[in-house]
Order: sequence, then C-alpha cells, then structure tokens
Amino acid sequence: MPPPITLLTDFGIDDAYAAVMKGVILTRDPRATLVDITHAIEPQNIRHGAFVLATAYRYFPKNTIHVAVVDPGVGGERRGIILKVAGSLFVAPDNGLLTYVIDQLNLNDDVVPDSGTEATMIRLKRGIEAVSITDPRFWRTPVSPTFHGRDVFAPVAAGLSLGLSPYEFGEKTDVLTVLPITRPQRMGPGETVGQVMHIDHFGNLVSDIRSSDLPPGPVEVYIAGCRIDGISHNYLGSGELLAILGSSGYLEISLRNGSAARYLEALVGDEVSVRAIA
Amino acid sequence: MPPPITLLTDFGIDDAYAAVMKGVILTRDPRATLVDITHAIEPQNIRHGAFVLATAYRYFPKNTIHVAVVDPGVGGERRGIILKVAGSLFVAPDNGLLTYVIDQLNLNDDVVPDSGTEATMIRLKRGIEAVSITDPRFWRTPVSPTFHGRDVFAPVAAGLSLGLSPYEFGEKTDVLTVLPITRPQRMGPGETVGQVMHIDHFGNLVSDIRSSDLPPGPVEVYIAGCRIDGISHNYLGSGELLAILGSSGYLEISLRNGSAARYLEALVGDEVSVRAIA
Amino acid sequence: MPPPITLLTDFGIDDAYAAVMKGVILTRDPRATLVDITHAIEPQNIRHGAFVLATAYRYFPKNTIHVAVVDPGVGGERRGIILKVAGSLFVAPDNGLLTYVIDQLNLNDDVVPDSGTEATMIRLKRGIEAVSITDPRFWRTPVSPTFHGRDVFAPVAAGLSLGLSPYEFGEKTDVLTVLPITRPQRMGPGETVGQVMHIDHFGNLVSDIRSSDLPPGPVEVYIAGCRIDGISHNYLGSGELLAILGSSGYLEISLRNGSAARYLEALVGDEVSVRAIA
Repeated sequence: MPPPITLLTDFGIDDAYAAVMKGVILTRDPRATLVDITHAIEPQNIRHGAFVLATAYRYFPKNTIHVAVVDPGVGGERRGIILKVAGSLFVAPDNGLLTYVIDQLNLNDDVVPDSGTEATMIRLKRGIEAVSITDPRFWRTPVSPTFHGRDVFAPVAAGLSLGLSPYEFGEKTDVLTVLPITRPQRMGPGETVGQVMHIDHFGNLVSDIRSSDLPPGPVEVYIAGCRIDGISHNYLGSGELLAILGSSGYLEISLRNGSAARYLEALVGDEVSVRAIA
Repeated sequence: MPPPITLLTDFGIDDAYAAVMKGVILTRDPRATLVDITHAIEPQNIRHGAFVLATAYRYFPKNTIHVAVVDPGVGGERRGIILKVAGSLFVAPDNGLLTYVIDQLNLNDDVVPDSGTEATMIRLKRGIEAVSITDPRFWRTPVSPTFHGRDVFAPVAAGLSLGLSPYEFGEKTDVLTVLPITRPQRMGPGETVGQVMHIDHFGNLVSDIRSSDLPPGPVEVYIAGCRIDGISHNYLGSGELLAILGSSGYLEISLRNGSAARYLEALVGDEVSVRAIA
Repeated sequence: MPPPITLLTDFGIDDAYAAVMKGVILTRDPRATLVDITHAIEPQNIRHGAFVLATAYRYFPKNTIHVAVVDPGVGGERRGIILKVAGSLFVAPDNGLLTYVIDQLNLNDDVVPDSGTEATMIRLKRGIEAVSITDPRFWRTPVSPTFHGRDVFAPVAAGLSLGLSPYEFGEKTDVLTVLPITRPQRMGPGETVGQVMHIDHFGNLVSDIRSSDLPPGPVEVYIAGCRIDGISHNYLGSGELLAILGSSGYLEISLRNGSAARYLEALVGDEVSVRAIA
C-alpha cells in the first residue's frame, strides 16, 4: 500500500479540475490513496496556499506525497519542482508555494527575506534533495499550457507513488523560490508586534507570533483597538474576545462562539501586539 | 479491509483542519477508508451536526466508525465518548451531538426532554455500550486545548479501526448528554403541528413530522401562511409548492425546481401544520 | 482492485446526501474507490451537469463507473440508464445528463438538435451498449420517490463495481435522451460566432469554439464589446484580457490574475466572435 497523495489547489470544487488530477493519478497508480487538503485557496494567492500547506503536511504518514498547485505562472518560465525532506515529498510549481515548509523545516542556507513582495531564489542547505521537473517522459502529451496540474504534476506524483526516485523526473537543483516572510518584532523586552497571517473558517485570526516570541510574564494583547487580558488556555476563559496559542503553534485571536474576524473587521496583515503588564 | 471511517465536523473545507484529522488517522491505520459526511455544519451548532449525522449513519457498512466533531466546549470539562450500537461506532464530544442517533435508536432509558434549550444528561438503557474517553495512551501529545479532533478523536478512531475494543480508551459510562428534541403535537385527531428542523441544500424544509404523526385521510399542509393541498408522491405533482414524505422519513416542503426556503423566507423552527380535510 | 466510481451531483456538500450514496456503495462493495467529480452542479441544471461530466470522464482509468445524478424528474416517468462506451460506464437518469458525452464520443445515429430547449430522444449507433434500469432486484427498498441516487443509482454502481454485466440491471435500449447543443456558426470563411458554455471557478469563460472552428491565420476575438488581439499560448501574454485554447480544447476568455466573468459581467449564453484579421 503506497503512502497517501494529498492535493492542495486553488481549483475550487465546482469544476472537475481537481477530480481530473485524481483521475490521472489513479490511471497510473490505481492503489493511490488520495486526500484533499483543500481546493479553496484564493485564486492565484500563492502565499495563502503556502500557509495552509504548512499547517497540514506534518500530520500525514511518512513519505506522503503532497501535490500543491497554485500556479499563476503556468505555461511560462517557472519550473516545476520536487522537494524531498524528512518524511514528505512535495510536488509543486517553483513559485514560493513551499515557502513556509522550507522555513519551518529550516531547509534554507540563504536567509528568507522578511520584507518586500517579490519572490526570490534562495540556496538550500547542503544535502537537501530538490529536483527540477524537466524530463517529459512521464508527462501527459501534449502538455496544456494552462493545466500542468493534470499534465505534469499529477503524473509526477503518480510516478513517485509507484516508487520512482525524484531524480527520474529531472535534475537536482539547490535553489528554490520563496516569498518574503514577515516576522514578529521585539520592541524591547516588553513588547512583541506581529501581524495576522491567516483568517480561518471560524474567523479566528492566526498571527505570526509563536510562544517563544512572547514577552515573559503576564501580558495584554492588542488588536484593532481592542485590549485582551492575558492568554487563555482554551475557548472557555472569561471575556468574549480571547487570545490563545492555537493548534498550529501561533497566537490566535478568537471570539467565543463567533467570528473574531467579523467582530473586529480584521484583515490579513493587521497588527497584533503583545505587551508585558507593567 | 477495515470498515470505513466517516467524518462530520464544522471545520469547513477552506482550511486544512479536516485533512489533518485524515492525516492522523492514516498515519495510524494506512488501510483506513475515509468518507466525509460533511464539514459544513454551522460553526458550533451542535444540533445541526446532530441532525445531519442522524440522516447518514444508517447507510454505511456494519461497524463503520463515525467521528463527529462540533465542539464549542473543547479544552474544557466536557467528556469525549465512544458509543457502540448495532452496526455503528460513534466517536464524539459528549455535548449532544449524538442526540438524534440516541433518539432514533431508542437507546435512552430516561426521556429526552422536549423543551428548553439546555443540554441534559440522560441514562442509557441497560446493555448499551458507551465509553468515556479518558485513557491518554492513544492521544497525540501534547493535546491542543483547541483541536481534540486531531489529538484525541482521530487517534481514537484509528485505534478502533485497528480493531481495539472501545474499552481500551476509557471507562464504561451509562449516561450521555442530549439536547432537547421538539416533537410534533397532535391537536386533537384532526391536526398535527410540527416545525422545520432542517433546511437542505435545495431549500427543502425538513419538518419533524413523520408519516405516523399524520392525521388519517386527506390533508392540507400549512406553512408560512401558505396552504398546500395534500401530500405528493414525488416532485411532479400539480402546484408549485409541494409537501412530500422525504427520503429521511420526514414531511418536507419543497418548491418545484426551486428553493422553498427562499420562496417562503422560512427558517428552522417555523411552524408546519397538517390538518385533516373536514 | 475494482475501477474507481465517480460521483457528480447537484446535492451540495452541506447535507449528507452525497455521503449516503457512498455509504450505500461501500456497503455493497467495500473495496470501492470513490472520487467526487463535483456536487456543486447548480440545482436541477441538467445541462450544467452534462458539461462538467464531459470535461472529466476521459481522464479516469479504463472501466471507471461514473454515477451522475441531476434529477429534477426523480420519481416520475424518466428512466434510469447505464451507458457503456470505450473505457467508461455511466449510470444516470435518462434526462440529457449524458448529452455531451454522447456528442463527444459520437455515439448518436440521429443528429443531436442544435436549437430549442426541449430534451429529445435520439437513436444510438448500432453496437453502442445502453441499458434501461428496470430490474428492481438490486435496488434498495422501498425506493424513495425523491432519492434514486441512494436507492437505485448507488446500488447499480456497486453492482457494476462487483463485476455484474450492465444487462443484469434491465433491458437493452437503443435510444437515449439528449438536450440540444448549440454549435459555433461559420459566418463565411472569416468569422466564427459561438457562445459561452460554462463559467469556471476562476471566472474563465469557456466557449463552444474549438481549435478546428477557428478561421485560419491571425484573428481577433470579440466578447461583450471588448476586442482581444489574437489567441495566447498561456496566461502570460500581453494585455489583461486573454483568449486561449483551454485545457478542455475550447476557446476560453480569461482575465490575467482575475475573473473575466466578473470583469465583463458575462453570462452563459453570451456571444463570442472570432474574426480573421483583414
């Protein structure tokens, strides 16, 4: 029984695009176990896809193949890549979709930029296995210039599922594309300022602040002009608005039995500040 | 080949939460067949989840494991439970999510309350197997106080899929939490008054009135000030607005080729009355 | 390992209807591999379902069983059918849901009408295997007059998955129902006029114009009063609005990094014109 293959795309679930990728995979490896991570990534929003992918991959079995397709540059010069790291294989366009995976697993030798909006190439640490998908032997032909998910990435994933080495699909590369990642700033010992990275289905505001970024001792959290007293251990604390270390390890702002995003009219990029109580 | 594992949650399909539960299950039992019932339960709406679960479980293979997570009390005092009944295993927070399953299968010794809004504990009939999930051996650690779906319920489901007895996961209990269930009222022999329990994807209004609740002979159905003449056998009867005994056994109000909910501006809780024709 | 079973319906994913079909299938064939094509077909829109089905089936493994249920006539006189063609089995109500499959595979002996709105019966070519589902042996009983997906089509699909011949389920038929299909018109050698057939998740406007319908040489594309200069090879051409031969073989109008449908306020049925440059 081969490891699962996961799919993350911005294809939506109204059309057959995601299903077509599954059909191509099952045609080549009928034993494949397919799991949708999501197909609701905002169209062409690579950063959104990169973030959701990074919240998911670590919970899958060893050697799971993660196929991610958010691909505004399809049909152009951007490469397709395979990245093999401890326990996971990733198949994706080389456009920054693996940014948070690379950052979390500390695969980069060069520093991932923390400002700007442009994607940049960074060098990987020695020993990291990455492959540029260049060998057309496994592709469907002719390759549609608008649907590499079907004609390139799905066939490559099926080939990996069948046990082929990543090196069968192209040449080793030691650089990959990343997007800049904002980091929370320590404003002296008593304050950390971060921002909202993601808003989830419940309207929870997921910030980029981790436990290790917090000032020591009791704190207050500020967002959108609201003050939250302390960090709660669950959704049952006093007060309606809560700050809590969420299940992905980031500080989240939640509204008890409601949507913090709607209540605060908050957006991705909004500032979140944590201050030690004087 | 183990029985399927179904998932019903309020997690939505935009984030990776549901996929993460699948990853955890497949890590522990790679043979698992996973089926989504839905992830579109209204956030924190236990009653909604309880109703949809009760429309689905009976159509799955014997010994199917149904994991249901609508869990506003996660991280607090509420228990996790396993309920084993003829042909099905349920894994869920003990917050009323199994109310309609318990009621349909007549598992309760105490009466399920028919008014009020508070959840209450009821005693199960002798011989019903229910387990309070208390043994942390199978949980992921540390357990996130906000995501027991990932750290408790998915691992327990995988353990059951591997063939472990429910009693491996905690101690037998003979009480479970239920929500009050409204029942249609007989207003003398000629009239039954019920209410809309659920509005489905097509805008059909699913009431709590069953065939056995109907007055004998020809009837009229009243809803939102509209009169419907008789109960149709299919969607093809005369008239635009139809009353029909739906596929789950409840009386439904439908609009031919349209949404009765939108047409009538109807809501869950609206009154539905069936009167014998004088 | 049996071939996959795909599901395409207008049931949505908020209720358990699609899951119930899966439960019924897995009860009868626990080995079944189930793949959702989509459950987001517009309610009762047979043409929409027919189009999406026709974009998907060819990418699945040989002998895949495609179950399609968009069924406003459920419970009435319309037949259920099985259609077996090179590499695929279809199970569906006989209401036009297979129109584009029949047209693409050229299964019809009679001409598929190109105007009007009514469904019509057409004769199939000799040798095409189609079966009218009339034998209740495999159905769930009693059959709900509103949910043949659960009680007829799912059981038939499971039976086919178990290896039964289509002829076990009813009698051979040589006529099937189709909807009229509009065709692009050649207005002399220099112009082709078609229409928008489908709007996808990205807001791409999928027309009914194929490569072979295009005038020779350089062209301009007109839609909603906008002129598009030439046909692009990918989404990276100059200009914001692009015409491109999409992954299904039809001419599509796209907006770079945006929704052409929203930008042009376009609807299914809008005219698309391609003119040779004078």
